Amino acid sequence: MSTIVSPLAPASFPRLPPVAGVELATMAAGLRYKGRDDLLLAAVPAGTTVAGTFTTSRCSSAPVDWCKKNLGRGEARALVVNAGNANAFTGSAGYAVSEGTARAAARALGVEPESVFLSSTGVIGELMSEPAITAAIPRLVAGRAPADAGAWEAAADAIRTTDTFAKGSVSPVGATDGRVVGIAKGSGMIAPDMATMLAYVFTDAAASADRLQRLTTAAVTRSFNRITVDGDTSTSDTVLVFATGCSDTEIDEANEAVLADSLETVMLDLAQQIVRDGEGATKFISVEVTGAESTRAAERIARSIADSPLVKTAIAAEDANWGRIVMAVGKAGEAADRDRLQIRIGDELVASHGVKHPEYSEERATRHMTQPRIEISVDVGVGTHTATVWTCDLTHGYIDINAGYRS
Amino acid sequence: MSTIVSPLAPASFPRLPPVAGVELATMAAGLRYKGRDDLLLAAVPAGTTVAGTFTTSRCSSAPVDWCKKNLGRGEARALVVNAGNANAFTGSAGYAVSEGTARAAARALGVEPESVFLSSTGVIGELMSEPAITAAIPRLVAGRAPADAGAWEAAADAIRTTDTFAKGSVSPVGATDGRVVGIAKGSGMIAPDMATMLAYVFTDAAASADRLQRLTTAAVTRSFNRITVDGDTSTSDTVLVFATGCSDTEIDEANEAVLADSLETVMLDLAQQIVRDGEGATKFISVEVTGAESTRAAERIARSIADSPLVKTAIAAEDANWGRIVMAVGKAGEAADRDRLQIRIGDELVASHGVKHPEYSEERATRHMTQPRIEISVDVGVGTHTATVWTCDLTHGYIDINAGYRS
Repeated sequence: MSTIVSPLAPASFPRLPPVAGVELATMAAGLRYKGRDDLLLAAVPAGTTVAGTFTTSRCSSAPVDWCKKNLGRGEARALVVNAGNANAFTGSAGYAVSEGTARAAARALGVEPESVFLSSTGVIGELMSEPAITAAIPRLVAGRAPADAGAWEAAADAIRTTDTFAKGSVSPVGATDGRVVGIAKGSGMIAPDMATMLAYVFTDAAASADRLQRLTTAAVTRSFNRITVDGDTSTSDTVLVFATGCSDTEIDEANEAVLADSLETVMLDLAQQIVRDGEGATKFISVEVTGAESTRAAERIARSIADSPLVKTAIAAEDANWGRIVMAVGKAGEAADRDRLQIRIGDELVASHGVKHPEYSEERATRHMTQPRIEISVDVGVGTHTATVWTCDLTHGYIDINAGYRS
Repeated sequence: MSTIVSPLAPASFPRLPPVAGVELATMAAGLRYKGRDDLLLAAVPAGTTVAGTFTTSRCSSAPVDWCKKNLGRGEARALVVNAGNANAFTGSAGYAVSEGTARAAARALGVEPESVFLSSTGVIGELMSEPAITAAIPRLVAGRAPADAGAWEAAADAIRTTDTFAKGSVSPVGATDGRVVGIAKGSGMIAPDMATMLAYVFTDAAASADRLQRLTTAAVTRSFNRITVDGDTSTSDTVLVFATGCSDTEIDEANEAVLADSLETVMLDLAQQIVRDGEGATKFISVEVTGAESTRAAERIARSIADSPLVKTAIAAEDANWGRIVMAVGKAGEAADRDRLQIRIGDELVASHGVKHPEYSEERATRHMTQPRIEISVDVGVGTHTATVWTCDLTHGYIDINAGYRS
């Protein structure tokens, strides 16, 4: 774990409350890191439903394959996550290690292996030691305890690789007694040799697995799928949501909107924390696109701006280089009316009707660029749909982290 | 123009021969740069056919719009290119400047305005001075002369923006007396505030406009469309091919393959020179993908690797970080069989059958990484189609050029 914390980090880790039914444990299994916890267990009670979304990579890791195979059952009893080795591109031997890990946890907890969900994050292409993990698991299981604030922070710490701070978030479920708590890791879509964005969200509300999956997919679409650091996609990206049903909050057709809102709140907070921990980041950037033909088009245009290395380097230099925003809108491949395009940097109207606005002040735009939070808004003038994507700037720090780390 | 030349630049500008019928002139119009030529005229005789391809940007520049409008006529008499101002995102006033430029050149040459082709490269969003250009054009026209070696180099110099060297190439047309000569500019898909990849290719062979367009599109697909520096696309990218028909070489159905080959040879040479001048480049990288489902799939996978900032920063660090290649194959979204994937770095077999090869030597792979020319080959194991994409590494130099230039 880096000792230099991102300048965009929150002041402190949030105080996360218990989630009824969730027990946590962490320990140092020594898979790669020395002197820190690198293994996390979350145990959940019988009746817990589970939903998830995974990387779209065609080279997905063994634990992702394991989770995808078992997610359809909709039932979970445990989550085991290790940091230091991604167990990706390790063939059938790697898959056997994941299976062995699930079996070991299932045995120690007295549950079915198929109800144990797994993630691994770290080096790609190195076989992970199965004995090292399976030997650790009985001690991990024995040490589990209800998730209090200290345990949540320890859990968020144990899954870090190059993250410069631990990431957590909480939201009540509307006016009910239920709550949603989440932890995540990620710093760069994939960090130096150590892949991955991971997020685990727990609620004590009760929801059927089908409903939970539907709400999860919708919330991920508007949170984790709307961030980008470098446009790269890990072999191991995983979001899992567990609903223990241990509170009095029953989610059905009539009230599912409150859980949907809470999930989105927690996921968006975690997603933005990942951007704030983007490799080398000095600016937190929101890109809002309006006036698009569809939500998908709005998102693609926003992502084209947010992924453009030229836009990102300009922002790093605090340069209100709006010509590069025009370029990125143009290359997105989605409908946009050049002659009705409107661009704002912060509150400053930079361009409208396809030309520079007559009252545009580069001085005012540059003043906005010196803030740590940059807001870019673009109306593409062809429809009514909108989307916002969050990203960070591209700095020498990114090159240092990704090119310099072996030197 | 930069005084520091790319370490990947050719030893010198090639000695380009005349192309029968082509006259050139350059001059300093002072549109933005001081003390250098920034305006190019190429005049071609009556009967010259023309073909072209342009940026796919939805925010294309005024000269691109002008060229697209007139290309269908298939006839050309002149090309006028300026450096320093892109005349992009300048609305109807900008289009009027392009139209005025074409009219001025047409008047001075005694030809139709619609047969004058235009490009502008430089700052986006600033209106270009029409009087400055139109006042210069009569002198430019008066000064034109048959294209000898010195004139070709002066032409390639006049269209440079942040290019660190002038780019030219020549090829005979098979065993005929015809030849193909080309010049280009580009350094980064779009350079600091100064957009664009431009290439102009001239042949003294005779070919119908339809045939020339078909051969041009095919050659561009396998050359300029197979390079990437930063994945960004300019508002002004333009390739124009002029066939004067002044040699004895008549191209028809039976012999069109020889012109196709020559066009591809010249375009591929120019395209690779642009990569060699990529902003901050220290490595020239070829990414070959085989075993893909279709050529399009092979190209998209190769481009995913070539555009990945994590792959590019690893290469800058001379790090044989093949896990990132796996990641980039996975994220391409095209069919790839993870468990049949084969990866080579230079001659070294890194991975096969979805795992690290048992005899892989990181020492040998690293030795290859220290060369200025890096070869990555990936077989994705699902088909028979192939594609190669060329790119450069991502270094501190890129950030310096793109983030540092206003500081």
